[in-house]
Amino acid sequence: MTDRTDFRFGLRVRYAEVDFQGIVYFAHYATYFDVAIHEFFRSLPYDYTSIRRTSGTDFNIVRSVVEFKRPLRFDEAFEVEVTLGRIGRTSLTFTPAIWVASESEPRATGEVVWVHADQATMRAVPLPEELLTLLHGRSGMAQEV
Amino acid sequence: MTDRTDFRFGLRVRYAEVDFQGIVYFAHYATYFDVAIHEFFRSLPYDYTSIRRTSGTDFNIVRSVVEFKRPLRFDEAFEVEVTLGRIGRTSLTFTPAIWVASESEPRATGEVVWVHADQATMRAVPLPEELLTLLHGRSGMAQEV
Amino acid sequence: MTDRTDFRFGLRVRYAEVDFQGIVYFAHYATYFDVAIHEFFRSLPYDYTSIRRTSGTDFNIVRSVVEFKRPLRFDEAFEVEVTLGRIGRTSLTFTPAIWVASESEPRATGEVVWVHADQATMRAVPLPEELLTLLHGRSGMAQEV
Amino acid sequence: MTDRTDFRFGLRVRYAEVDFQGIVYFAHYATYFDVAIHEFFRSLPYDYTSIRRTSGTDFNIVRSVVEFKRPLRFDEAFEVEVTLGRIGRTSLTFTPAIWVASESEPRATGEVVWVHADQATMRAVPLPEELLTLLHGRSGMAQEV
Repeated sequence: MTDRTDFRFGLRVRYAEVDFQGIVYFAHYATYFDVAIHEFFRSLPYDYTSIRRTSGTDFNIVRSVVEFKRPLRFDEAFEVEVTLGRIGRTSLTFTPAIWVASESEPRATGEVVWVHADQATMRAVPLPEELLTLLHGRSGMAQEV
Repeated sequence: MTDRTDFRFGLRVRYAEVDFQGIVYFAHYATYFDVAIHEFFRSLPYDYTSIRRTSGTDFNIVRSVVEFKRPLRFDEAFEVEVTLGRIGRTSLTFTPAIWVASESEPRATGEVVWVHADQATMRAVPLPEELLTLLHGRSGMAQEV
Repeated sequence: MTDRTDFRFGLRVRYAEVDFQGIVYFAHYATYFDVAIHEFFRSLPYDYTSIRRTSGTDFNIVRSVVEFKRPLRFDEAFEVEVTLGRIGRTSLTFTPAIWVASESEPRATGEVVWVHADQATMRAVPLPEELLTLLHGRSGMAQEV
Repeated sequence: MTDRTDFRFGLRVRYAEVDFQGIVYFAHYATYFDVAIHEFFRSLPYDYTSIRRTSGTDFNIVRSVVEFKRPLRFDEAFEVEVTLGRIGRTSLTFTPAIWVASESEPRATGEVVWVHADQATMRAVPLPEELLTLLHGRSGMAQEV
């Protein structure tokens, strides 16, 4: 089963992020996705950065995909839509997209897979109950079995 | 048919690239791939950056994938292996991997797809003949039809 | 004579910008300054990025200084205060500072010097009249002679 | 008294580091300086990253200056010259410069001040004796009093 939780966060292209072609250097799209995923957690609200201190676990990214449709240019304002495509036992799969206002197609889409892992052994462990509760409360999502 | 052209380029993790977990921030792996692909072209030798001046075409990245196996840490030396997985009519698909000496598994693998496009219309156009000749000379590769 | 034009722009520390010590990597402060200076121009409003197309001139940065007082940490919200410390004949000297709400001392201060230059010869040329008019209108500033 | 320790480390401009003007984005020069300073320590050899684990102290950057003379362009090879301009009681002042082979003037010069500080209190503490010994052995430098 696939769950969806939509969230949007606005950003603007920095001069530092633009390359010789005048478009955003491709690796920065993954950073944009990451910034928006952080804001998604804030909106729950869930402070995932504190789990490392209390539980010895943390999230690690195991897969990052970006599909580039049309380039973002310097100074363009855009929104990163964060969709939670899948809630696994130990992982979360986000499928973000980058939108510019009034356009009908995204500039870019992608996938980011986070795994919840014990930082000493680097083995995947089940997602924190508190996080699951917040995700379910958000949008009537059911955990994937 | 799948063609292969292997090439390796050495790098070392910069402090600027490491995050709070002491490991390389995930978006930088795509930059590492990119640096090595540039060096791969230099080794042919093919100056793809000059085609925009002479032909009005250029390469655009349409897809970038990174699969993270085990993190790179600050100051680690590593090699990016650039494999040319597929030569299409208008595109090149690279399948890079990051290796640390003496290890039997890569730290990360990925895929980067470059499309050769007219920069005015942004439509894909056939790969330059000169580039195809160099790629074929390199490893007995045949163009995919 | 020294002129002042104050402007503040809010940002938040990205995970991508934090290093192994959990604090913002030092080189990113200059990027923060730059983002805020861009927004300062937008507020005038002056589109300095278009001058290269119409006049063949552009701004080049000739000096960048950052003094680090106390580190910014991951996820902290802050404001970059942009003060225009000096309007020269061919240059602008910004003296930005980074503030966190309710604090009495800035986290960092600095200086960024922009020179208006002919891009073919790279020689400094007088600041555009239109820009001077906007800067004077902003705060009763007089051009330094 | 001013001490000097020269060291050079070679780099090449990455596409990721170039901006819309086709030149290196100004904030990256500080990163180049930083990479070369790390290599300078390796050459001593001194592992400054381990002091945080053994002593609870670490180095913090308190000042960073870059003076831009002529821009570095995409794919240019260059060397960062690291000069140790001053050894203070608790600080080291580096005065790096960026050189392109066969040129008589540097592309950029700068200053980076590192302070050795207790990470709990953030108060400056004397430089480690072992480091001073290595620096003195390197070039007959005397500690500044």
